[in-house]
Amino acid sequence: MPKADASPRPQPKDLSHHFSAMAKLRVQSSVAPFVQALTPSITNLGAGFPLAGTFPADSLEGAIAKTNRFPLHPMSPTSFPSLDISRFTIPKFSSSIPAVIATDNRIDLATSLQYQDSTGLPSLANFISDFSINHQNQGKIPYSKPEALITSGAVDAFSKCLSTFANPGDSILMEEVTYFTARDAVLPFRVRIAPMKLDDEGIDAVALNRMLDTWSEKNMGRKPHMMYTVSLGQNPTGSVTPLKRKKMIYEVCQKHDILIFEDEPFWPFQYNISEASTETFLATLAPSYLQIDIDGRVLGINTFTKVIAPGCRVGWIVAQPAFIEKLTFLTDDSTSNPSGFGEAVLAQLFRQWGVQGFVRWIEGLRASYLQKRDVLCEALAEGRDLIVHNRSKRKRHSEEHNEHHHNHKTKIRMYEFEVPAAGFLLWVQINTASHPLSHTSRGKSRLTPSEIIQLLWKHLYGPPYNLLTIPGNIFAATPGVQKEIDAAGVGHLRLAFIGVETSDLKRVGEVFGNAMKTFWEGEGWGLEALDADEEV
Amino acid sequence: MPKADASPRPQPKDLSHHFSAMAKLRVQSSVAPFVQALTPSITNLGAGFPLAGTFPADSLEGAIAKTNRFPLHPMSPTSFPSLDISRFTIPKFSSSIPAVIATDNRIDLATSLQYQDSTGLPSLANFISDFSINHQNQGKIPYSKPEALITSGAVDAFSKCLSTFANPGDSILMEEVTYFTARDAVLPFRVRIAPMKLDDEGIDAVALNRMLDTWSEKNMGRKPHMMYTVSLGQNPTGSVTPLKRKKMIYEVCQKHDILIFEDEPFWPFQYNISEASTETFLATLAPSYLQIDIDGRVLGINTFTKVIAPGCRVGWIVAQPAFIEKLTFLTDDSTSNPSGFGEAVLAQLFRQWGVQGFVRWIEGLRASYLQKRDVLCEALAEGRDLIVHNRSKRKRHSEEHNEHHHNHKTKIRMYEFEVPAAGFLLWVQINTASHPLSHTSRGKSRLTPSEIIQLLWKHLYGPPYNLLTIPGNIFAATPGVQKEIDAAGVGHLRLAFIGVETSDLKRVGEVFGNAMKTFWEGEGWGLEALDADEEV
Repeated sequence: MPKADASPRPQPKDLSHHFSAMAKLRVQSSVAPFVQALTPSITNLGAGFPLAGTFPADSLEGAIAKTNRFPLHPMSPTSFPSLDISRFTIPKFSSSIPAVIATDNRIDLATSLQYQDSTGLPSLANFISDFSINHQNQGKIPYSKPEALITSGAVDAFSKCLSTFANPGDSILMEEVTYFTARDAVLPFRVRIAPMKLDDEGIDAVALNRMLDTWSEKNMGRKPHMMYTVSLGQNPTGSVTPLKRKKMIYEVCQKHDILIFEDEPFWPFQYNISEASTETFLATLAPSYLQIDIDGRVLGINTFTKVIAPGCRVGWIVAQPAFIEKLTFLTDDSTSNPSGFGEAVLAQLFRQWGVQGFVRWIEGLRASYLQKRDVLCEALAEGRDLIVHNRSKRKRHSEEHNEHHHNHKTKIRMYEFEVPAAGFLLWVQINTASHPLSHTSRGKSRLTPSEIIQLLWKHLYGPPYNLLTIPGNIFAATPGVQKEIDAAGVGHLRLAFIGVETSDLKRVGEVFGNAMKTFWEGEGWGLEALDADEEV
Repeated sequence: MPKADASPRPQPKDLSHHFSAMAKLRVQSSVAPFVQALTPSITNLGAGFPLAGTFPADSLEGAIAKTNRFPLHPMSPTSFPSLDISRFTIPKFSSSIPAVIATDNRIDLATSLQYQDSTGLPSLANFISDFSINHQNQGKIPYSKPEALITSGAVDAFSKCLSTFANPGDSILMEEVTYFTARDAVLPFRVRIAPMKLDDEGIDAVALNRMLDTWSEKNMGRKPHMMYTVSLGQNPTGSVTPLKRKKMIYEVCQKHDILIFEDEPFWPFQYNISEASTETFLATLAPSYLQIDIDGRVLGINTFTKVIAPGCRVGWIVAQPAFIEKLTFLTDDSTSNPSGFGEAVLAQLFRQWGVQGFVRWIEGLRASYLQKRDVLCEALAEGRDLIVHNRSKRKRHSEEHNEHHHNHKTKIRMYEFEVPAAGFLLWVQINTASHPLSHTSRGKSRLTPSEIIQLLWKHLYGPPYNLLTIPGNIFAATPGVQKEIDAAGVGHLRLAFIGVETSDLKRVGEVFGNAMKTFWEGEGWGLEALDADEEV
């Protein structure tokens, strides 16, 4: 993987006019110079730091997977991944040179359980910085010099971006269907969401530019100066925005002076790539906006949630130094560094794996998720059509006595989906217009797509199917978006394929198809009850 | 330790009018009902939760201290604490009943490294809730039913309180000298700080009431509806506010409808108590405001930083349920739960220690800190006076040739301090008025106390003393407070006694006294240089 070349790079633009009123007031912690004055030759009567001897944890040890646990090619559904492990030991003290706040790469409990700068344990922070800038982003970030700040996960990172850039009354651009937690996090900031049209490559750059060109502050509120996007495995649609499209969108953001908060939890789980060696794997992936960010207007948000474990609660932000500085001041005043237990284990894991080992680990996960995607998509494709025998409804209910009914077979497509290009999520469009409840019938009023999805969700969740899905309406960026989807006569369910063992996914896909079929045929919404009413 | 008795308790008051504009908009996460719908009998196609088999950590093990590591009575300065340990092992799976989000008290990596409710790992959250409500606060919180919310430390907790209750333009009451990080955290919220007068029992309740009774919104801005206080080991003064005074202050807060954010990192390190058995230790401590909080207007902030280790990054807030609910919604949108690695280790530690073991651990730390306090205070008391031989300055500089100078000994008290009643901190008043630089001399303009403290700080920090201290000015709640302190002709240094080994503290205290003496005698501020100038 290439390191940044040595040619000089331009400074990022001064974009400090984007800072929120709150961020403008954030300055360096008043105690920081005194903590920085703590060196091994100094007696600490200043900072109220307990001695490491008072920490009750004397060592932390354990077992971690070897990087080849998951094979790079599909496994037989009944085979198991490798259970080889490496042991690790994190001692209480790893150096005879005392340091209250260590600035070197030591990994020990005396350091990780002590107070730290809110930039985190150096051994972990340095790994993240090197990995994200030189490997994940291939040393290609165009300006001098991007920095990485450790956070308590991606949601924490986005929340810190909002605190740093959003004022009440601002507007933010979000994909028309988007990650619900990001949408939920925006609203209390009294920031208006401006939905962006999507196609199968993500944000429609032309429609975006038109919206911004014709923005009327009188009718639409303050013009957006921020964008939130998930471009590599969009949540929920699973699309990947290729570089060419990204360049168009970035130009629109330059023209209209918009910051980009790019949240990429799924970035390495891209499926439409030419598979290569571990050495070249990262280079084959569609890139982040960071790689074309000549201005320094992108804040790249990332996390270990999907590549290590959600419980790490460790993420990071890559951005220009002036942004990282304000975000660090905010971190000083709020979360500080992540847990020292977690930092030490992660730092040790990456020390034992190395960058190439971490990439190999990710590749293995990707191969496993690709297999899951394919198994579920195949099973779902099988079940998407309902074969019906066309008859009039009256005839159907007196079937036994009717010798003359027509019996044409018709195929109803109950649901459809794009195979996701990245991530773990299937955005399944439910063709509610083809469902009996969407038609006016016997004086009963027609149900809206959202109402049908609500009944469908319950039907899938109840016995005998017992499937948890997420209804599409919670992904709508705004109530207006949901109205448009309803008006199109469709609804959605989001299915995640990572929570089910590969060996079980075919069956689960079939259960889904069967449950859809019975829902179209009358189960789950009281057709019998309706009929009974009528026949009384 | 008593549990809450069974008699019915009143509901807390509805104090929702205190919520910030931001908090009023915070509602339950839109995905929460779907995550709650995940039970062992349900197939998860909904939440994008990786399977635990993909977490690379297979086990976490280690060694923790036994609870008697630190003896309850002063050790000889050269003796070592007990090095007995207990081993622990946290397995990947601890139960054959699968749970994506476990609601029981299991401690395993499959649970702690998975997504969790932002209320944290149940085994740890339940311990904290029981410990803080039934033991730390003795089951005495007067209303029905207080709750505890886990946070990423005390600074995170206070930041969340500000987000939940502070609007721009609000005012907050803070002790006139206060914890700098809390003061720094307030300012970006565009909240004005109203300083409260302190005496040796903490906040002066009468002065506080007078200020609020006579508050002029025209001259002083919006009347405060929030108070931040550290009442059990005030930072920096080390005072403890006894129950009687607390009742007076609480009544003032009731009268003026003020919420109390009570930050008590030092609560168990109280020194003026009648020592008792481990069973009764917590009952001997001066209580939190929570124990008299009939209205539910106190948010008690606490942390494991001083009783386990700063790197835990785990704290908690105890408050009435309506407050905890809003703080939980904010947690959903920001930090989520603390690190699963840290949660698992802490939960395991407390399982092995039990509540009584944890109390015994705390008692041992307290005994160790009491000894440190006494050693340092004794050494500092020795060195606080400078014996000077009274002469005119002119005579002094021609001493060799002056046979007739008077030689009266005078004692100058260079510094003084109250022995802290709790905590780790000594608030040392420097009598700058007695320092030569405070007097106009030979046309050189007199230095302010703050300027003298700045020179003194450098003098102490430099060789041969190499002592890090914290100058008093960074504790001033407002610039106005600092002006008043300057006007009184004094300055301060804060000394922490926990960062130095007990065996070294006597020497360090003597070094401090010597350094003060040489600073009074002319080192560290260029007396020789001044003299040289004059004699040219």
